[in-house]
Amino acid sequence: MAKLLSGKEVALALTEEVKERVCLLREKGVAPALCIIRVGEKPGDISYERGARKRCEMTGILCRTICLPEDVSQEELLRVIRECNEDDSVHGVLLLRPLPATLDEVSAANALVSAKDVDCMTDLSISGLLSGRGIGFAPCTAQAAMAFLDHYGIDAAGKRAVVIGRSLVFGKPAALMLTDRNATVTLCHTRTRDLSAVARQADLLLVACGHAGVVGADCVRPGQVVIDVGINTGPDGKLCGDVSFGEVEPIVEAITPVPGGVGAVTTSILARHVVQACENLKNRSS
Amino acid sequence: MAKLLSGKEVALALTEEVKERVCLLREKGVAPALCIIRVGEKPGDISYERGARKRCEMTGILCRTICLPEDVSQEELLRVIRECNEDDSVHGVLLLRPLPATLDEVSAANALVSAKDVDCMTDLSISGLLSGRGIGFAPCTAQAAMAFLDHYGIDAAGKRAVVIGRSLVFGKPAALMLTDRNATVTLCHTRTRDLSAVARQADLLLVACGHAGVVGADCVRPGQVVIDVGINTGPDGKLCGDVSFGEVEPIVEAITPVPGGVGAVTTSILARHVVQACENLKNRSS
Repeated sequence: MAKLLSGKEVALALTEEVKERVCLLREKGVAPALCIIRVGEKPGDISYERGARKRCEMTGILCRTICLPEDVSQEELLRVIRECNEDDSVHGVLLLRPLPATLDEVSAANALVSAKDVDCMTDLSISGLLSGRGIGFAPCTAQAAMAFLDHYGIDAAGKRAVVIGRSLVFGKPAALMLTDRNATVTLCHTRTRDLSAVARQADLLLVACGHAGVVGADCVRPGQVVIDVGINTGPDGKLCGDVSFGEVEPIVEAITPVPGGVGAVTTSILARHVVQACENLKNRSS
Repeated sequence: MAKLLSGKEVALALTEEVKERVCLLREKGVAPALCIIRVGEKPGDISYERGARKRCEMTGILCRTICLPEDVSQEELLRVIRECNEDDSVHGVLLLRPLPATLDEVSAANALVSAKDVDCMTDLSISGLLSGRGIGFAPCTAQAAMAFLDHYGIDAAGKRAVVIGRSLVFGKPAALMLTDRNATVTLCHTRTRDLSAVARQADLLLVACGHAGVVGADCVRPGQVVIDVGINTGPDGKLCGDVSFGEVEPIVEAITPVPGGVGAVTTSILARHVVQACENLKNRSS
């Protein structure tokens, strides 16, 4: 039986850390605040927003949401983002994406100042992932996966890591972050041949391809740590990851469940980024 | 005996292509131009500058150099870069790096507009490598390695690629570019364990770690394509790559020599980026 890497446990530890940092800031007269911008009423957005609000409440971060109608104009959206840039009482901004297809998501993303870009949507934050020049924050989900390594004391240095999925919100950033942690990283995707053989070479296997059951027993071996980033609805209507948990869990050394794994940690990372953004601002102004 | 992937041959083909594009631009009254900014008199800089000037002459690109003294102030350097930004007759700017330690290289790099950043030194160009949002140009050396694949019809899709060296000017960009070409890429570095076993898994092996002899017979197998990006001075005083050519060449399917390999192609890519920057500008203004 594998060790279960509990998202709840990681989130709890992060929440405690963030709470303390919020207290210190409040003692200095600063109240860290997140502004969520939501366009339309997509259930996924509303659900993520609810989770983020709850985490902010738990940590003492102020949180407000700006809800825009689904047919909002690009100009109005940009105006709202620029208002957030100029509002000194807002330290982090989360624009829920994807936006409706009528809007230009890239130009909206880049309207935000990178100092408040707590989920890596601006070009400048993206460059920071590659350049190591210390600009911006990593995408929350990729950072959440790293939080499991930190919390459970899993040192990536010298290990072979395999990341399945090459998205800009997880796969590519996670590959770079693991490289910075001195892992030897292989990035796999839909065009990878013999995925199971490549996956078995991993000491750390991170899966984020958005399809249930991509990683089964044939992809794993004893001794591996498996981090499942997928969130899918299975044929039984229940939430499941990209990894066939029932097949894989008896074989590997440690694994994150779905639900209760990476997804449970993302909003804690978001909260940590907000408090960090607030601290950065405070340090610059003092 | 391996097929020799000739930098001279690749450079010749690129030069012909660039010449034709320059002709078309000149017919429309536009003369593509590169401005090289050199600080100090380092022999490596002067030698690269000479190669770039020669390539510009061969292709009909105008080239001028601004030479600044080694003790130039940051302000003066920034002023020169901003002048280049505003000068409509300059389409590409190459700042020879590394700069003397007295100067802030990152802020100097970011003073340049990304439209003229023909060697990927600004944060915006760096973000383009990761985001695929079509911003800026890739680093010339990484693009030169890709030019070998294009010229010799080597399709990376579905292949396993191993890149040795995780620099911002070659290893990381090349890994991303190969991923975009649908290769399954592993990025290796000084902390990689059992490098030779990892390297042998490659169909395409790209080596850019800056140490002669890192890749010997133990790292290769028949069927591989080896691209050697290193430029070192061997114990005999002669130029050599990171690959032990004498050991590796008899085993693999194809290999680039040093000298006469990737290094011979870099200035042709630089010229192509300048003409592309000029075309982009023309398309925007027409």
